[in-house]
Amino acid sequence: MSEQKKKLSIIMFSGTIEKLISLGIFVSSATAAGYEVNLLFLGMALLNVTKKGIKKQPAPIDKNYEKSGPILMKRLQELKYPVWYQQIEEAKKTGKVKVFACNKAMELSGIKKEDLADFVDDVIEPEAFFNIAEGGITLFI
Amino acid sequence: MSEQKKKLSIIMFSGTIEKLISLGIFVSSATAAGYEVNLLFLGMALLNVTKKGIKKQPAPIDKNYEKSGPILMKRLQELKYPVWYQQIEEAKKTGKVKVFACNKAMELSGIKKEDLADFVDDVIEPEAFFNIAEGGITLFI
Amino acid sequence: MSEQKKKLSIIMFSGTIEKLISLGIFVSSATAAGYEVNLLFLGMALLNVTKKGIKKQPAPIDKNYEKSGPILMKRLQELKYPVWYQQIEEAKKTGKVKVFACNKAMELSGIKKEDLADFVDDVIEPEAFFNIAEGGITLFI
Repeated sequence: MSEQKKKLSIIMFSGTIEKLISLGIFVSSATAAGYEVNLLFLGMALLNVTKKGIKKQPAPIDKNYEKSGPILMKRLQELKYPVWYQQIEEAKKTGKVKVFACNKAMELSGIKKEDLADFVDDVIEPEAFFNIAEGGITLFI
Repeated sequence: MSEQKKKLSIIMFSGTIEKLISLGIFVSSATAAGYEVNLLFLGMALLNVTKKGIKKQPAPIDKNYEKSGPILMKRLQELKYPVWYQQIEEAKKTGKVKVFACNKAMELSGIKKEDLADFVDDVIEPEAFFNIAEGGITLFI
Repeated sequence: MSEQKKKLSIIMFSGTIEKLISLGIFVSSATAAGYEVNLLFLGMALLNVTKKGIKKQPAPIDKNYEKSGPILMKRLQELKYPVWYQQIEEAKKTGKVKVFACNKAMELSGIKKEDLADFVDDVIEPEAFFNIAEGGITLFI
């Protein structure tokens, strides 16, 4: 049990900036602690991992946090905090992070493989991701 | 370990259409791949599994995705994509899908057992669902 | 396997009242059923576990549920339902609930340790929480 590989898998659905920031922190922290990290982008988050999408920063603030969101964004700038996808790109250098886009979400949104940002490794079926996630911690964000 | 039954359990809280679409896809994909699937409806999603609720389609678009949501809905119609709860009904034919409503959520919302859609199998306590979910992948959507 | 300790870990991101109510119910139900429960507050939910934050009840209603939210709140009052953080305080008496705040979220929001409500046990890194969560059910809310 103690030798078991530590694994964090995240199904990223949300396209709002606050949750993307959490994603960046989780990926960065988990890889630093030796975790294998697997990401599946789908739903609204798929729009954030296209070549066009990553240029639109910051992503929209959640309408539930319209007061606190802008304060957070200002503080991120002051801290010169890295943008969420740069944290993923950085974490990928460890060789322990795999980034996938969901084929079903691509079909529904009309996004093609060539539209995806370079840090996306592959396009897979949701059930293939479930198989990858087996035995680790899995989050839906 | 290799013989362990694959299991996906989803606690469905959200009542917005984009997440219900993801739910339908997950249930459909996972059962096709041999997963046992368990669903617990509570929070705002409980309103979507009443006899009245399933007639109100599509469920509301998430206010965070008011631009992209309608584009997605139009594309679903073009693709003649099945409605999320029809995907659940279809997946239930495999005998591997169980659908539960949370008794605490029913108490708070005033929904009674006879109000629930026919594809809901039973009403259970949250902790009973945690016990069912043990050892598999569990998502809160 | 049958002797394995049952464990529920929740990463609490959302600051809306409907999800905080679910949190309170999960913590209460799981501890009653003998689960060890670990909570990590971050993102918008961090604002709800400050000394100031817990006084602002109810937390904001999710903008997606502006119709059903107020009906739910009224019913909670009629049922004299405990407030979510009181459920956490109550559950802590079992000695089986640990409440953490995320150090990264505190850095980003400018919240200090002395600002946190008394029921928060400690401030930790996200990866420390992943280690705590290993082998149990983990939810991102």
